[in-house]
Amino acid sequence: MALSEFEIIQQVFQQQKVQRADVILGIGDDGAVTKVPENHGLVLVMDTLIENVHFPDNMRPKDIGYRSLAVNLSDLAAMGAEPAWVTLALSLPDSNESWIKAFASGFFSLAEQYNIQLIGGDLTRGPLTITVQAHGFVPQGQKLVRSGAQVGDLICVTGTLGDAAAGLTSWSETDKSFEYLRQRLARPTPRIEVGLMLRSLASSAIDISDGLLADLNHILNASHVGASLRVEHLPLSLALCEKYDQLESRDMALSGGDDYELCFTIAPENRHLLDQLSEYTQVAEIGVIEAERGLRCLLSNGSHYVPVESGYQHF
Amino acid sequence: MALSEFEIIQQVFQQQKVQRADVILGIGDDGAVTKVPENHGLVLVMDTLIENVHFPDNMRPKDIGYRSLAVNLSDLAAMGAEPAWVTLALSLPDSNESWIKAFASGFFSLAEQYNIQLIGGDLTRGPLTITVQAHGFVPQGQKLVRSGAQVGDLICVTGTLGDAAAGLTSWSETDKSFEYLRQRLARPTPRIEVGLMLRSLASSAIDISDGLLADLNHILNASHVGASLRVEHLPLSLALCEKYDQLESRDMALSGGDDYELCFTIAPENRHLLDQLSEYTQVAEIGVIEAERGLRCLLSNGSHYVPVESGYQHF
Repeated sequence: MALSEFEIIQQVFQQQKVQRADVILGIGDDGAVTKVPENHGLVLVMDTLIENVHFPDNMRPKDIGYRSLAVNLSDLAAMGAEPAWVTLALSLPDSNESWIKAFASGFFSLAEQYNIQLIGGDLTRGPLTITVQAHGFVPQGQKLVRSGAQVGDLICVTGTLGDAAAGLTSWSETDKSFEYLRQRLARPTPRIEVGLMLRSLASSAIDISDGLLADLNHILNASHVGASLRVEHLPLSLALCEKYDQLESRDMALSGGDDYELCFTIAPENRHLLDQLSEYTQVAEIGVIEAERGLRCLLSNGSHYVPVESGYQHF
Repeated sequence: MALSEFEIIQQVFQQQKVQRADVILGIGDDGAVTKVPENHGLVLVMDTLIENVHFPDNMRPKDIGYRSLAVNLSDLAAMGAEPAWVTLALSLPDSNESWIKAFASGFFSLAEQYNIQLIGGDLTRGPLTITVQAHGFVPQGQKLVRSGAQVGDLICVTGTLGDAAAGLTSWSETDKSFEYLRQRLARPTPRIEVGLMLRSLASSAIDISDGLLADLNHILNASHVGASLRVEHLPLSLALCEKYDQLESRDMALSGGDDYELCFTIAPENRHLLDQLSEYTQVAEIGVIEAERGLRCLLSNGSHYVPVESGYQHF
């Protein structure tokens, strides 16, 4: 059944459980009005997902909803921000009620987990395109940025790498044993709690959306440093290693996008503090920041490892 | 010439003149960080423009850039907010350098007029889609909303109505005498200054994007009241009246979208204050809020006027 624009807004998007005290005016006027806590910076992140560009066209609408919020929360995590509110610009080719309700259920299930309120947006007819803007808070002076990496800092990543790229490669496989990898693509885990703990620990941070090499390079360029990576130290999931050989797995871990893990740097004297993060997810130390510019991938025998690809280019 | 994603961001979108003191971190990290002044609410508005849905495919990129910001500033105006920062999610079928630079020049020319800084966004490949989120401030308790109209309040509108609808109808005319109308579609004037003055004057406000009848109905529904409109009092431009007959002009003024004028209500004892707005634009008193629900269009002889259409439906 086709719903009108206002029915979609009222029956679906205004039916959210989360109601925050810092939202003065939510959905339903020309704009939303909110309050930011004193002595806090407001962090704003925005990400667009387009069908057949950022997700396969047969991804379940529930997962598309989850994923479109998750990739934005991942950016908030990389800034060390505590999530608060979100806006949603949704373009739909038609107003298919069951699609919209499934999308919203995935979106809201993640929003509730972090007490995030949907406060506004826009609903238009057009090719399936989802733009989400997420907003969070960070105490003054405690934001995480890309530009603070120092020579000698350790390079770390959360979780495992390459799973989402493998999930995309195996998207059309009927074999259920690929399910874990496909789920890592469909429902990435934003590392919000880790981001909050990194505020006082990391010298720089970024989330891995375009692939480790491409995203670590953003840290290196912003910090005017170089790095060496230890290829054997890349954290690979059992599922990835079972399904792909060593060469494929490593290339996916280095160059595959969409993992939405955090890559960050810490001073070596803080290494012992990494244990505190393990309550939330595994953390691997995979390399070191160096003065020599450029990014070198090394094997334990000292030889250079040359990856096949080097990250997703949007154009 | 085709630019890469990072070249577009660096060479075009980071080349903005406006640099605000309340932007702690702008374009170039996982997110932006800003500060909101104390005792102020943060107003957030979001609007999407899609080619061939929200603008004709041969609209000049400079105008598309201008328009995509203007329609968002119009929402801020309707909230009584002072504009501050903006984010931009731009989907492009290809990375045509001259298109992008023209788009940005139109966007930035309006941004500079109001000291608005572009602080972030997303650039993706896909069907031409532009989502802008604009952010502004309103002193605590002074926001304009749709829900405050009272029985007896006067209904007013800024500027003239129906021009943009006529501009769209005449979009492919080669006759230059339609240029004024087409410009009203391509470059709507956000009524920011009027919105700021209405903070202490209006009981409700909305911007006219879907047509006067549709948008005034939002005020009526939110305020649980009805209204009568005086059709002869609709403010029509000379250009509109020269090109279209009375029936067409009135229908465009009542039902045509895209004017981005403000419709607001004020208590009758404040009528004399309307003069203060005339520094910025003309204001017409076009009707009155009534207890009887529904929206009635009346002619001066007391008869009812039935418009042909009743506003843009997105689905």
